[in-house]
Amino acid sequence: MARYKAVVEYDGAAYFGFQRLRGQPSVQAALEQAIESIAGQPIGILGAGRTDSGVHARGQVISFDLTWRHTTADLLRAMNANLPADVAVRALSETGPDFHPRYDARRRTYAYHVYNGRLLSPLKRLRSWHVARPLDAEKMQAAAVLLVGRKDFATFGRPPQGTNTVREVVRAQWRRQDELLIFEIEADAFLYRMVRSIVGSLKLVGEGVWNSEDFEAALAARDRSRAGKPAPPQGLYLVSVAYD
Amino acid sequence: MARYKAVVEYDGAAYFGFQRLRGQPSVQAALEQAIESIAGQPIGILGAGRTDSGVHARGQVISFDLTWRHTTADLLRAMNANLPADVAVRALSETGPDFHPRYDARRRTYAYHVYNGRLLSPLKRLRSWHVARPLDAEKMQAAAVLLVGRKDFATFGRPPQGTNTVREVVRAQWRRQDELLIFEIEADAFLYRMVRSIVGSLKLVGEGVWNSEDFEAALAARDRSRAGKPAPPQGLYLVSVAYD
Repeated sequence: MARYKAVVEYDGAAYFGFQRLRGQPSVQAALEQAIESIAGQPIGILGAGRTDSGVHARGQVISFDLTWRHTTADLLRAMNANLPADVAVRALSETGPDFHPRYDARRRTYAYHVYNGRLLSPLKRLRSWHVARPLDAEKMQAAAVLLVGRKDFATFGRPPQGTNTVREVVRAQWRRQDELLIFEIEADAFLYRMVRSIVGSLKLVGEGVWNSEDFEAALAARDRSRAGKPAPPQGLYLVSVAYD
Repeated sequence: MARYKAVVEYDGAAYFGFQRLRGQPSVQAALEQAIESIAGQPIGILGAGRTDSGVHARGQVISFDLTWRHTTADLLRAMNANLPADVAVRALSETGPDFHPRYDARRRTYAYHVYNGRLLSPLKRLRSWHVARPLDAEKMQAAAVLLVGRKDFATFGRPPQGTNTVREVVRAQWRRQDELLIFEIEADAFLYRMVRSIVGSLKLVGEGVWNSEDFEAALAARDRSRAGKPAPPQGLYLVSVAYD
């Protein structure tokens, strides 16, 4: 028996999030079913981060224990052959018996895609948030910089059970790519809904409804009711999880 | 009554192509239904190009005649309010009474997206062709250049009724964008299946199955049976149609 670490990409559109939840379709269930087909018995997996309903991942990290007599490359192929088309293993390796994808994670990076065009774009609708009003990316960047550091982010999310709301953001950056405004944020860990809540608030800055001082005051208030409305899930991607 | 010209974007996944066909879902039917809801009577549209089942468009051009008492901007909004989420009007203008989107078109540009990565990518699966074997983009470009000019493209497609197989390609170019290889081709007009058939053949060059001379000989043969297997529809985009 060995412990495996896998990097997983998924299109979140058809799932009620990563985590198993009362029989709803989940990415976790899809992965566990694929592994069960290979192992011939139920095998539980652990994930680095719980992504919400409709949220995508390019680099979710999972772990599981399995007795496997062939190569790791064979196992990766077998998993992908048993997974639905909207979930795929991108990398797989054997890891130490104590590896835990959530507790051992040192950094997580999320990206959020805003399509900032006046008109609807059918080809972007499943992968981004359509904001028709022109956004000022420089103002959004000036406010985003205020997130960097070890701070209490209670305004922007709920903590998992038994933890506090202090997190360390190491990078928060907007960039333009064709008609998309892409936000990338890296931190030691995130609160529930934190990225979507931050993006919803930065959008108010980009529209001119808030200025940087309003954003700073909302952050300092440590009060959920002071955040902007969370951005919708289809624009959010869990990009990567880093370990020592 | 005035004639309108509209630029339309669509996600082709749910449609049996642009053109109405024996009651199957088509982009044309979706557009005609939206216009009928606004006009209160059936109104036929014309399109610049017939895209196949599953093919996307960023810039399909259509025309229709309508009596409309409000602004063009109001009509655009009304159309988008009546269209499904996978079809949208991106631009709308009044045009001359003789305008015909197909006969008057001077240039068409198509793009084809190949995802050339070893592993499956769930987030790219609906918008590109996954080719796992590494492709040599320089060799594909060297062969693509052979397409440019006024030539007989009978190898790569069937002509619409009553026309020949000579077309003028003015640009054929591969570029890399992250993990995608993107082919753009511009011509006065295209044969049915021409872009997908060319991409399927250039893929053989990129894999090293064909060399440039094989591609050149296939083109010169003017024989459908000499083309590579057509690339699948989900990677193809009608980018734009140009008029004088």
